Amino acid sequence: VTAFQWPVRVYYEDTDAGGVVYHTSYIRFLERARTEWLRALGYTQSKLNDEQHLLFSVVSLAMQYHSPARLDDLLNVGLTAHVSGGASVTFRQTIVRQADDVTLASGEVRVACLDSVTFKPRRLPEDLRKEFV
Amino acid sequence: VTAFQWPVRVYYEDTDAGGVVYHTSYIRFLERARTEWLRALGYTQSKLNDEQHLLFSVVSLAMQYHSPARLDDLLNVGLTAHVSGGASVTFRQTIVRQADDVTLASGEVRVACLDSVTFKPRRLPEDLRKEFV
Amino acid sequence: VTAFQWPVRVYYEDTDAGGVVYHTSYIRFLERARTEWLRALGYTQSKLNDEQHLLFSVVSLAMQYHSPARLDDLLNVGLTAHVSGGASVTFRQTIVRQADDVTLASGEVRVACLDSVTFKPRRLPEDLRKEFV
Amino acid sequence: VTAFQWPVRVYYEDTDAGGVVYHTSYIRFLERARTEWLRALGYTQSKLNDEQHLLFSVVSLAMQYHSPARLDDLLNVGLTAHVSGGASVTFRQTIVRQADDVTLASGEVRVACLDSVTFKPRRLPEDLRKEFV
Repeated sequence: VTAFQWPVRVYYEDTDAGGVVYHTSYIRFLERARTEWLRALGYTQSKLNDEQHLLFSVVSLAMQYHSPARLDDLLNVGLTAHVSGGASVTFRQTIVRQADDVTLASGEVRVACLDSVTFKPRRLPEDLRKEFV
Repeated sequence: VTAFQWPVRVYYEDTDAGGVVYHTSYIRFLERARTEWLRALGYTQSKLNDEQHLLFSVVSLAMQYHSPARLDDLLNVGLTAHVSGGASVTFRQTIVRQADDVTLASGEVRVACLDSVTFKPRRLPEDLRKEFV
Repeated sequence: VTAFQWPVRVYYEDTDAGGVVYHTSYIRFLERARTEWLRALGYTQSKLNDEQHLLFSVVSLAMQYHSPARLDDLLNVGLTAHVSGGASVTFRQTIVRQADDVTLASGEVRVACLDSVTFKPRRLPEDLRKEFV
Repeated sequence: VTAFQWPVRVYYEDTDAGGVVYHTSYIRFLERARTEWLRALGYTQSKLNDEQHLLFSVVSLAMQYHSPARLDDLLNVGLTAHVSGGASVTFRQTIVRQADDVTLASGEVRVACLDSVTFKPRRLPEDLRKEFV
Protein backbone atom coordinates (compact mmCIF):
# COMPACT_ATOMS: atom_id res chain seq x y z
CA VAL A 1 0.00 0.00 0.00
CA THR A 2 1.35 3.39 -0.99
CA ALA A 3 -0.15 6.83 -0.58
CA PHE A 4 0.17 9.59 -3.16
CA GLN A 5 -1.40 12.97 -3.84
CA TRP A 6 -1.64 15.06 -6.97
CA PRO A 7 -3.01 18.62 -7.27
CA VAL A 8 -5.62 19.39 -9.93
CA ARG A 9 -6.99 22.83 -10.81
CA VAL A 10 -10.56 23.10 -12.14
CA TYR A 11 -10.87 24.89 -15.51
CA TYR A 12 -13.91 25.74 -17.63
CA GLU A 13 -13.25 22.58 -19.67
CA ASP A 14 -14.06 20.53 -16.54
CA THR A 15 -17.39 22.17 -15.72
CA ASP A 16 -20.91 21.95 -17.13
CA ALA A 17 -23.98 24.15 -17.41
CA GLY A 18 -25.05 23.02 -13.92
CA GLY A 19 -22.33 25.44 -12.77
CA VAL A 20 -20.18 22.72 -11.21
CA VAL A 21 -17.64 20.12 -12.32
CA TYR A 22 -19.10 17.61 -14.80
CA HIS A 23 -19.43 14.15 -13.27
CA THR A 24 -17.01 12.42 -15.65
CA SER A 25 -14.31 15.09 -15.15
CA TYR A 26 -13.62 13.75 -11.65
CA ILE A 27 -12.85 10.37 -13.20
CA ARG A 28 -10.29 11.98 -15.53
CA PHE A 29 -8.75 13.61 -12.44
CA LEU A 30 -8.43 10.19 -10.80
CA GLU A 31 -6.48 8.92 -13.80
CA ARG A 32 -4.11 11.90 -13.73
CA ALA A 33 -3.18 11.00 -10.14
CA ARG A 34 -2.62 7.33 -11.06
CA THR A 35 -0.45 8.39 -13.99
CA GLU A 36 1.63 10.77 -11.88
CA TRP A 37 1.99 8.13 -9.16
CA LEU A 38 3.45 5.76 -11.76
CA ARG A 39 5.70 8.56 -13.01
CA ALA A 40 6.88 9.28 -9.46
CA LEU A 41 7.87 5.59 -9.26
CA GLY A 42 9.83 5.97 -12.49
CA TYR A 43 7.33 4.52 -14.97
CA THR A 44 5.68 6.26 -17.90
CA GLN A 45 2.84 4.51 -19.67
CA SER A 46 4.05 5.44 -23.15
CA LYS A 47 7.45 3.81 -22.44
CA LEU A 48 5.86 0.73 -20.82
CA ASN A 49 3.84 0.34 -24.01
CA ASP A 50 6.69 1.05 -26.45
CA GLU A 51 9.32 -1.03 -24.65
CA GLN A 52 7.31 -3.80 -22.96
CA HIS A 53 3.98 -3.82 -24.86
CA LEU A 54 2.33 -3.27 -21.51
CA LEU A 55 -0.92 -1.37 -21.19
CA PHE A 56 -3.10 -0.49 -18.19
CA SER A 57 -6.83 -0.70 -18.77
CA VAL A 58 -9.69 0.22 -16.43
CA VAL A 59 -11.76 -2.90 -15.68
CA SER A 60 -14.28 -1.42 -13.29
CA LEU A 61 -14.84 1.67 -11.22
CA ALA A 62 -17.18 2.97 -8.56
CA MET A 63 -17.63 6.65 -7.79
CA GLN A 64 -19.39 8.44 -4.94
CA TYR A 65 -20.10 12.14 -5.41
CA HIS A 66 -20.38 13.92 -2.07
CA SER A 67 -20.22 17.64 -2.86
CA PRO A 68 -19.56 19.54 -6.08
CA ALA A 69 -16.25 21.08 -7.10
CA ARG A 70 -16.42 24.43 -8.90
CA LEU A 71 -14.48 26.51 -11.39
CA ASP A 72 -11.07 27.59 -10.04
CA ASP A 73 -11.12 25.11 -7.15
CA LEU A 74 -7.76 23.55 -6.36
CA LEU A 75 -8.19 19.85 -5.59
CA ASN A 76 -5.99 17.14 -4.15
CA VAL A 77 -6.43 13.76 -5.77
CA GLY A 78 -5.20 11.01 -3.45
CA LEU A 79 -4.69 7.30 -3.97
CA THR A 80 -3.64 4.11 -2.29
CA ALA A 81 -2.79 1.13 -4.50
CA HIS A 82 -3.76 -2.44 -3.63
CA VAL A 83 -2.56 -5.36 -5.74
CA SER A 84 -5.50 -7.64 -6.49
CA GLY A 85 -4.21 -10.81 -8.10
CA GLY A 86 -1.16 -10.91 -10.33
CA ALA A 87 -2.49 -8.88 -13.22
CA SER A 88 -4.52 -6.08 -11.71
CA VAL A 89 -4.36 -3.25 -9.20
CA THR A 90 -7.16 -1.65 -7.23
CA PHE A 91 -6.83 2.04 -6.46
CA ARG A 92 -8.80 3.70 -3.67
CA GLN A 93 -8.96 7.37 -4.48
CA THR A 94 -10.32 10.57 -3.03
CA ILE A 95 -10.79 14.09 -4.34
CA VAL A 96 -10.39 16.73 -1.66
CA ARG A 97 -10.84 20.51 -1.99
CA GLN A 98 -7.63 22.12 -0.74
CA ALA A 99 -9.32 25.28 0.58
CA ASP A 100 -11.27 23.47 3.32
CA ASP A 101 -10.10 19.84 3.16
CA VAL A 102 -13.61 18.60 2.32
CA THR A 103 -13.77 15.28 0.45
CA LEU A 104 -15.85 15.97 -2.66
CA ALA A 105 -15.71 12.54 -4.28
CA SER A 106 -14.26 9.12 -3.64
CA GLY A 107 -13.76 6.21 -5.96
CA GLU A 108 -12.39 2.73 -6.38
CA VAL A 109 -10.81 1.90 -9.73
CA ARG A 110 -9.60 -1.55 -10.78
CA VAL A 111 -6.96 -1.49 -13.49
CA ALA A 112 -5.77 -4.55 -15.40
CA CYS A 113 -2.32 -5.04 -16.83
CA LEU A 114 -2.69 -6.05 -20.49
CA ASP A 115 -0.49 -6.94 -23.42
CA SER A 116 -0.98 -4.00 -25.81
CA VAL A 117 -0.80 -6.29 -28.86
CA THR A 118 -3.02 -9.20 -27.80
CA PHE A 119 -5.10 -7.27 -25.18
CA LYS A 120 -4.70 -10.37 -22.93
CA PRO A 121 -3.98 -10.05 -19.18
CA ARG A 122 -0.31 -9.83 -18.32
CA ARG A 123 1.35 -10.36 -14.95
CA LEU A 124 2.49 -7.05 -13.47
CA PRO A 125 6.28 -6.73 -13.85
CA GLU A 126 8.04 -7.88 -10.64
CA ASP A 127 9.83 -4.57 -10.11
CA LEU A 128 6.49 -2.78 -10.33
CA ARG A 129 4.79 -5.29 -7.99
CA LYS A 130 7.37 -4.50 -5.32
CA GLU A 131 6.36 -0.85 -5.44
CA PHE A 132 2.72 -1.70 -4.98
CA VAL A 133 2.94 -3.67 -1.76
CA VAL B 1 -39.45 0.05 -14.70
CA THR B 2 -39.08 1.29 -18.26
CA ALA B 3 -36.72 0.18 -20.98
CA PHE B 4 -35.15 2.55 -23.49
CA GLN B 5 -32.37 2.45 -26.07
CA TRP B 6 -30.34 5.20 -27.71
CA PRO B 7 -27.79 4.79 -30.53
CA VAL B 8 -24.32 6.32 -30.16
CA ARG B 9 -21.62 6.46 -32.84
CA VAL B 10 -17.97 6.45 -31.76
CA TYR B 11 -15.91 9.39 -33.07
CA TYR B 12 -12.21 10.27 -32.66
CA GLU B 13 -13.19 12.57 -29.78
CA ASP B 14 -14.29 9.48 -27.81
CA THR B 15 -11.11 7.45 -28.25
CA ASP B 16 -7.63 7.56 -26.72
CA ALA B 17 -4.09 6.61 -27.68
CA GLY B 18 -4.76 3.04 -26.51
CA GLY B 19 -6.68 2.80 -29.80
CA VAL B 20 -10.05 2.24 -28.13
CA VAL B 21 -12.80 4.31 -26.50
CA TYR B 22 -11.53 6.26 -23.46
CA HIS B 23 -12.99 4.90 -20.22
CA THR B 24 -14.87 8.06 -19.27
CA SER B 25 -16.46 8.38 -22.73
CA TYR B 26 -18.74 5.43 -21.97
CA ILE B 27 -20.07 7.35 -18.97
CA ARG B 28 -20.92 10.32 -21.19
CA PHE B 29 -22.76 7.90 -23.49
CA LEU B 30 -24.82 6.66 -20.52
CA GLU B 31 -25.91 10.22 -19.79
CA ARG B 32 -26.96 10.81 -23.40
CA ALA B 33 -29.31 7.84 -23.13
CA ARG B 34 -30.78 9.08 -19.83
CA THR B 35 -31.26 12.54 -21.35
CA GLU B 36 -32.98 11.15 -24.45
CA TRP B 37 -35.16 8.88 -22.32
CA LEU B 38 -36.35 11.96 -20.40
CA ARG B 39 -36.90 13.76 -23.72
CA ALA B 40 -38.91 10.82 -25.06
CA LEU B 41 -41.12 11.18 -21.96
CA GLY B 42 -41.59 14.86 -22.75
CA TYR B 43 -39.05 16.38 -20.36
CA THR B 44 -36.00 18.46 -21.20
CA GLN B 45 -33.51 19.21 -18.44
CA SER B 46 -33.04 22.82 -19.46
CA LYS B 47 -36.81 23.44 -19.17
CA LEU B 48 -37.07 21.53 -15.87
CA ASN B 49 -34.34 23.82 -14.56
CA ASP B 50 -35.72 27.07 -16.03
CA GLU B 51 -39.37 26.43 -15.13
CA GLN B 52 -39.19 24.31 -11.97
CA HIS B 53 -35.62 24.92 -10.66
CA LEU B 54 -35.17 21.17 -10.84
CA LEU B 55 -31.78 19.63 -11.52
CA PHE B 56 -30.62 16.02 -11.80
CA SER B 57 -27.24 15.27 -10.28
CA VAL B 58 -25.26 12.03 -10.32
CA VAL B 59 -24.80 10.78 -6.75
CA SER B 60 -22.91 7.57 -7.43
CA LEU B 61 -22.06 5.27 -10.28
CA ALA B 62 -20.50 1.89 -10.88
CA MET B 63 -19.08 0.81 -14.23
CA GLN B 64 -17.90 -2.56 -15.51
CA TYR B 65 -15.84 -2.57 -18.70
CA HIS B 66 -16.12 -5.89 -20.51
CA SER B 67 -14.69 -5.32 -23.98
CA PRO B 68 -13.48 -2.16 -25.76
CA ALA B 69 -15.47 -0.13 -28.28
CA ARG B 70 -13.51 1.29 -31.21
CA LEU B 71 -13.61 4.20 -33.64
CA ASP B 72 -16.67 4.07 -35.93
CA ASP B 73 -18.50 1.48 -33.81
CA LEU B 74 -22.24 2.00 -33.57
CA LEU B 75 -23.44 1.35 -30.02
CA ASN B 76 -26.80 0.92 -28.36
CA VAL B 77 -27.04 2.45 -24.92
CA GLY B 78 -29.87 0.88 -22.94
CA LEU B 79 -31.43 1.75 -19.63
CA THR B 80 -34.05 0.72 -17.13
CA ALA B 81 -35.07 3.24 -14.46
CA HIS B 82 -35.77 2.30 -10.85
CA VAL B 83 -37.09 4.84 -8.37
CA SER B 84 -35.07 4.63 -5.16
CA GLY B 85 -36.76 6.78 -2.51
CA GLY B 86 -38.67 9.94 -3.30
CA ALA B 87 -35.80 12.05 -4.54
CA SER B 88 -33.59 9.77 -6.58
CA VAL B 89 -33.61 7.32 -9.46
CA THR B 90 -31.29 4.40 -10.13
CA PHE B 91 -30.55 3.61 -13.77
CA ARG B 92 -29.22 0.22 -14.84
CA GLN B 93 -27.51 0.73 -18.16
CA THR B 94 -25.71 -1.29 -20.79
CA ILE B 95 -23.62 -0.42 -23.83
CA VAL B 96 -23.97 -2.94 -26.63
CA ARG B 97 -22.14 -3.00 -29.98
CA GLN B 98 -24.80 -3.13 -32.70
CA ALA B 99 -22.69 -5.14 -35.18
CA ASP B 100 -22.57 -8.27 -33.01
CA ASP B 101 -24.80 -7.52 -30.02
CA VAL B 102 -21.89 -7.88 -27.57
CA THR B 103 -22.26 -6.01 -24.28
CA LEU B 104 -19.15 -3.86 -23.98
CA ALA B 105 -19.90 -2.12 -20.69
CA SER B 106 -22.58 -2.01 -18.03
CA GLY B 107 -23.25 0.47 -15.30
CA GLU B 108 -25.51 1.56 -12.51
CA VAL B 109 -26.01 5.28 -12.01
CA ARG B 110 -27.91 6.87 -9.12
CA VAL B 111 -29.24 10.33 -9.89
CA ALA B 112 -30.67 12.69 -7.30
CA CYS B 113 -33.35 15.27 -7.93
CA LEU B 114 -32.12 18.62 -6.59
CA ASP B 115 -33.32 22.18 -6.30
CA SER B 116 -31.06 24.09 -8.69
CA VAL B 117 -30.97 27.13 -6.39
CA THR B 118 -30.41 25.50 -2.99
CA PHE B 119 -28.81 22.23 -4.26
CA LYS B 120 -31.05 20.46 -1.67
CA PRO B 121 -32.84 17.16 -2.48
CA ARG B 122 -36.26 17.62 -4.05
CA ARG B 123 -39.06 15.09 -4.37
CA LEU B 124 -39.42 13.92 -7.97
CA PRO B 125 -42.46 15.58 -9.57
CA GLU B 126 -45.53 13.29 -9.32
CA ASP B 127 -46.08 13.20 -13.09
CA LEU B 128 -42.48 12.15 -13.56
CA ARG B 129 -42.66 9.50 -10.82
CA LYS B 130 -45.55 7.86 -12.62
CA GLU B 131 -43.34 7.42 -15.67
CA PHE B 132 -40.61 5.80 -13.64
CA VAL B 133 -42.57 2.96 -12.09
CA VAL C 1 -17.89 21.08 -53.94
CA THR C 2 -20.41 19.05 -52.00
CA ALA C 3 -22.87 20.09 -49.33
CA PHE C 4 -23.76 17.97 -46.34
CA GLN C 5 -25.58 18.42 -43.02
CA TRP C 6 -25.48 16.47 -39.79
CA PRO C 7 -27.69 17.02 -36.71
CA VAL C 8 -26.05 17.36 -33.29
CA ARG C 9 -27.87 17.55 -29.95
CA VAL C 10 -26.27 19.49 -27.09
CA TYR C 11 -25.78 17.50 -23.87
CA TYR C 12 -24.38 18.51 -20.46
CA GLU C 13 -21.01 17.08 -21.56
CA ASP C 14 -20.81 19.84 -24.20
CA THR C 15 -21.51 22.77 -21.90
CA ASP C 16 -19.49 24.69 -19.33
CA ALA C 17 -20.11 26.71 -16.18
CA GLY C 18 -20.75 29.78 -18.33
CA GLY C 19 -24.13 28.10 -18.98
CA VAL C 20 -23.49 27.65 -22.70
CA VAL C 21 -21.64 25.25 -25.01
CA TYR C 22 -17.88 25.15 -24.30
CA HIS C 23 -15.88 26.72 -27.14
CA THR C 24 -13.99 23.55 -28.09
CA SER C 25 -17.19 21.46 -28.21
CA TYR C 26 -18.22 23.19 -31.44
CA ILE C 27 -14.98 21.99 -33.00
CA ARG C 28 -15.79 18.39 -32.04
CA PHE C 29 -19.20 18.89 -33.67
CA LEU C 30 -17.49 19.99 -36.89
CA GLU C 31 -15.49 16.77 -36.95
CA ARG C 32 -18.62 14.65 -36.45
CA ALA C 33 -20.09 16.19 -39.60
CA ARG C 34 -16.90 15.58 -41.60
CA THR C 35 -16.83 11.97 -40.39
CA GLU C 36 -20.48 11.38 -41.30
CA TRP C 37 -19.97 13.03 -44.70
CA LEU C 38 -17.16 10.56 -45.39
CA ARG C 39 -19.40 7.73 -44.16
CA ALA C 40 -22.21 8.89 -46.43
CA LEU C 41 -19.73 8.64 -49.33
CA GLY C 42 -18.90 5.08 -48.26
CA TYR C 43 -15.66 5.70 -46.35
CA THR C 44 -14.95 5.02 -42.70
CA GLN C 45 -11.76 6.36 -41.20
CA SER C 46 -10.99 3.18 -39.25
CA LYS C 47 -11.16 1.12 -42.47
CA LEU C 48 -9.12 3.68 -44.44
CA ASN C 49 -6.47 3.38 -41.74
CA ASP C 50 -6.60 -0.43 -41.41
CA GLU C 51 -6.75 -1.17 -45.13
CA GLN C 52 -4.85 1.74 -46.73
CA HIS C 53 -2.79 3.20 -43.84
CA LEU C 54 -4.49 6.47 -44.61
CA LEU C 55 -5.18 9.01 -41.90
CA PHE C 56 -6.79 12.46 -41.94
CA SER C 57 -5.17 15.04 -39.72
CA VAL C 58 -6.24 18.61 -39.01
CA VAL C 59 -3.56 21.03 -40.23
CA SER C 60 -5.22 24.31 -39.36
CA LEU C 61 -8.59 25.69 -38.40
CA ALA C 62 -10.30 29.02 -37.91
CA MET C 63 -13.47 29.46 -35.87
CA GLN C 64 -15.85 32.37 -35.50
CA TYR C 65 -18.30 32.25 -32.59
CA HIS C 66 -21.40 34.33 -33.31
CA SER C 67 -23.94 33.33 -30.68
CA PRO C 68 -23.92 30.62 -27.97
CA ALA C 69 -25.62 27.24 -28.21
CA ARG C 70 -27.23 25.93 -25.04
CA LEU C 71 -28.14 22.66 -23.34
CA ASP C 72 -30.76 20.70 -25.31
CA ASP C 73 -30.34 22.76 -28.48
CA LEU C 74 -30.58 20.77 -31.69
CA LEU C 75 -27.96 21.96 -34.17
CA ASN C 76 -27.26 21.39 -37.84
CA VAL C 77 -23.62 21.12 -38.72
CA GLY C 78 -23.06 21.84 -42.39
CA LEU C 79 -20.05 21.53 -44.64
CA THR C 80 -18.76 22.06 -48.12
CA ALA C 81 -15.50 20.38 -49.13
CA HIS C 82 -12.86 22.03 -51.28
CA VAL C 83 -9.81 20.13 -52.47
CA SER C 84 -6.68 22.23 -51.85
CA GLY C 85 -3.76 20.57 -53.53
CA GLY C 86 -3.42 16.84 -53.92
CA ALA C 87 -3.03 15.90 -50.29
CA SER C 88 -5.44 18.11 -48.38
CA VAL C 89 -9.05 19.21 -48.19
CA THR C 90 -10.49 22.45 -46.87
CA PHE C 91 -13.92 22.27 -45.26
CA ARG C 92 -16.09 25.34 -44.83
CA GLN C 93 -18.49 24.57 -42.02
CA THR C 94 -21.37 26.18 -40.17
CA ILE C 95 -23.29 25.38 -37.01
CA VAL C 96 -26.92 26.43 -37.18
CA ARG C 97 -29.59 26.18 -34.46
CA GLN C 98 -32.51 24.25 -35.92
CA ALA C 99 -35.18 26.05 -33.87
CA ASP C 100 -34.63 29.43 -35.53
CA ASP C 101 -32.05 28.81 -38.26
CA VAL C 102 -29.54 31.18 -36.64
CA THR C 103 -25.87 30.51 -37.49
CA LEU C 104 -24.10 30.18 -34.14
CA ALA C 105 -20.59 29.45 -35.36
CA SER C 106 -18.69 29.05 -38.58
CA GLY C 107 -15.32 27.56 -39.29
CA GLU C 108 -12.79 26.58 -41.88
CA VAL C 109 -10.81 23.41 -41.29
CA ARG C 110 -7.92 22.18 -43.43
CA VAL C 111 -7.34 18.45 -43.20
CA ALA C 112 -4.27 16.68 -44.61
CA CYS C 113 -4.20 13.15 -45.91
CA LEU C 114 -1.32 11.32 -44.19
CA ASP C 115 0.26 7.91 -44.20
CA SER C 116 -0.60 6.52 -40.76
CA VAL C 117 2.77 4.76 -40.46
CA THR C 118 5.17 7.46 -41.66
CA PHE C 119 2.92 10.47 -40.91
CA LYS C 120 4.00 11.86 -44.32
CA PRO C 121 1.54 13.55 -46.71
CA ARG C 122 -0.27 11.18 -49.05
CA ARG C 123 -2.16 11.97 -52.21
CA LEU C 124 -5.90 11.65 -51.69
CA PRO C 125 -7.14 8.40 -53.31
CA GLU C 126 -8.48 9.08 -56.82
CA ASP C 127 -11.93 7.66 -56.07
CA LEU C 128 -12.18 9.95 -53.06
CA ARG C 129 -10.95 12.99 -55.02
CA LYS C 130 -13.78 12.51 -57.48
CA GLU C 131 -16.28 12.85 -54.67
CA PHE C 132 -14.73 16.09 -53.48
CA VAL C 133 -14.99 18.10 -56.67
CA VAL D 1 2.17 43.06 -24.17
CA THR D 2 2.98 40.49 -21.53
CA ALA D 3 4.58 37.08 -21.86
CA PHE D 4 3.57 34.07 -19.80
CA GLN D 5 4.16 30.32 -19.85
CA TRP D 6 2.25 27.44 -18.31
CA PRO D 7 3.32 23.75 -18.28
CA VAL D 8 0.82 21.10 -19.42
CA ARG D 9 1.32 17.34 -19.21
CA VAL D 10 -0.39 15.13 -21.81
CA TYR D 11 -2.63 12.39 -20.35
CA TYR D 12 -4.67 9.65 -22.02
CA GLU D 13 -7.72 11.94 -21.79
CA ASP D 14 -6.01 14.32 -24.24
CA THR D 15 -5.17 11.76 -26.92
CA ASP D 16 -7.15 9.96 -29.60
CA ALA D 17 -6.98 6.68 -31.52
CA GLY D 18 -4.59 8.30 -34.01
CA GLY D 19 -2.04 7.83 -31.21
CA VAL D 20 -1.45 11.56 -30.73
CA VAL D 21 -3.12 14.49 -28.96
CA TYR D 22 -6.66 15.15 -30.22
CA HIS D 23 -6.87 18.41 -32.16
CA THR D 24 -9.29 20.14 -29.78
CA SER D 25 -7.20 19.24 -26.71
CA TYR D 26 -4.59 21.81 -27.73
CA ILE D 27 -7.28 24.48 -27.60
CA ARG D 28 -8.17 23.47 -24.03
CA PHE D 29 -4.47 23.79 -23.19
CA LEU D 30 -4.45 27.33 -24.58
CA GLU D 31 -7.30 28.26 -22.25
CA ARG D 32 -5.50 26.82 -19.23
CA ALA D 33 -2.57 29.15 -19.92
CA ARG D 34 -4.88 32.16 -20.30
CA THR D 35 -6.63 31.27 -17.04
CA GLU D 36 -3.34 30.88 -15.16
CA TRP D 37 -2.04 34.12 -16.62
CA LEU D 38 -5.10 35.91 -15.23
CA ARG D 39 -4.59 34.11 -11.90
CA ALA D 40 -0.92 35.20 -11.83
CA LEU D 41 -2.19 38.79 -12.24
CA GLY D 42 -4.53 38.27 -9.27
CA TYR D 43 -7.78 37.58 -11.12
CA THR D 44 -9.91 34.44 -11.00
CA GLN D 45 -12.73 34.09 -13.48
CA SER D 46 -15.18 32.71 -10.93
CA LYS D 47 -14.66 35.78 -8.70
CA LEU D 48 -14.85 38.19 -11.65
CA ASN D 49 -18.19 36.61 -12.49
CA ASP D 50 -19.54 36.45 -8.91
CA GLU D 51 -18.39 39.93 -7.88
CA GLN D 52 -18.46 41.93 -11.12
CA HIS D 53 -20.74 39.86 -13.43
CA LEU D 54 -17.84 39.80 -15.84
CA LEU D 55 -17.29 36.88 -18.20
CA PHE D 56 -14.66 36.20 -20.84
CA SER D 57 -15.93 34.56 -24.00
CA VAL D 58 -13.99 33.31 -27.02
CA VAL D 59 -15.05 35.28 -30.12
CA SER D 60 -12.75 33.71 -32.69
CA LEU D 61 -9.69 31.55 -32.88
CA ALA D 62 -7.19 30.31 -35.43
CA MET D 63 -4.99 27.28 -34.89
CA GLN D 64 -2.02 25.93 -36.82
CA TYR D 65 -0.95 22.38 -36.08
CA HIS D 66 2.73 21.84 -36.90
CA SER D 67 3.68 18.53 -35.29
CA PRO D 68 1.77 16.17 -32.97
CA ALA D 69 2.16 15.98 -29.20
CA ARG D 70 2.01 12.51 -27.65
CA LEU D 71 1.06 10.79 -24.41
CA ASP D 72 3.33 11.83 -21.50
CA ASP D 73 4.79 14.82 -23.35
CA LEU D 74 5.41 17.84 -21.16
CA LEU D 75 4.41 21.02 -22.99
CA ASN D 76 4.88 24.72 -22.44
CA VAL D 77 1.90 26.84 -23.37
CA GLY D 78 2.95 30.43 -23.95
CA LEU D 79 0.98 33.60 -24.54
CA THR D 80 1.26 37.28 -25.22
CA ALA D 81 -1.82 39.45 -24.69
CA HIS D 82 -2.81 42.30 -26.99
CA VAL D 83 -5.72 44.58 -26.17
CA SER D 84 -7.90 44.98 -29.26
CA GLY D 85 -10.47 47.66 -28.59
CA GLY D 86 -11.93 48.34 -25.17
CA ALA D 87 -13.83 45.11 -24.73
CA SER D 88 -11.63 42.39 -26.11
CA VAL D 89 -8.17 40.88 -25.90
CA THR D 90 -6.23 38.98 -28.53
CA PHE D 91 -3.87 36.28 -27.30
CA ARG D 92 -1.05 34.94 -29.45
CA GLN D 93 -0.20 31.53 -28.12
CA THR D 94 2.24 28.71 -28.77
CA ILE D 95 2.52 25.13 -27.60
CA VAL D 96 6.11 23.96 -27.31
CA ARG D 97 7.40 20.49 -26.36
CA GLN D 98 9.77 20.93 -23.43
CA ALA D 99 12.01 17.98 -24.34
CA ASP D 100 13.28 19.54 -27.57
CA ASP D 101 11.79 23.04 -27.66
CA VAL D 102 9.86 22.28 -30.88
CA THR D 103 6.73 24.39 -31.46
CA LEU D 104 3.92 21.89 -32.02
CA ALA D 105 1.03 24.31 -32.47
CA SER D 106 0.35 28.00 -32.50
CA GLY D 107 -2.86 29.93 -32.23
CA GLU D 108 -4.51 33.29 -31.99
CA VAL D 109 -7.54 33.61 -29.74
CA ARG D 110 -9.75 36.68 -29.43
CA VAL D 111 -11.65 36.88 -26.17
CA ALA D 112 -14.45 39.35 -25.46
CA CYS D 113 -15.32 40.77 -22.09
CA LEU D 114 -19.05 40.26 -21.51
CA ASP D 115 -21.63 41.01 -18.87
CA SER D 116 -22.55 37.57 -17.53
CA VAL D 117 -26.21 38.55 -17.07
CA THR D 118 -26.93 40.36 -20.34
CA PHE D 119 -24.16 38.72 -22.43
CA LYS D 120 -23.44 42.21 -23.83
CA PRO D 121 -19.88 43.50 -24.38
CA ARG D 122 -18.34 45.18 -21.36
CA ARG D 123 -15.33 47.43 -21.21
CA LEU D 124 -12.36 45.65 -19.64
CA PRO D 125 -11.88 46.91 -16.06
CA GLU D 126 -9.27 49.69 -15.95
CA ASP D 127 -7.02 47.86 -13.50
CA LEU D 128 -7.03 44.84 -15.79
CA ARG D 129 -6.37 46.95 -18.90
CA LYS D 130 -3.23 48.31 -17.29
CA GLU D 131 -1.91 44.77 -16.95
CA PHE D 132 -2.52 44.03 -20.61
CA VAL D 133 -0.47 46.80 -22.14
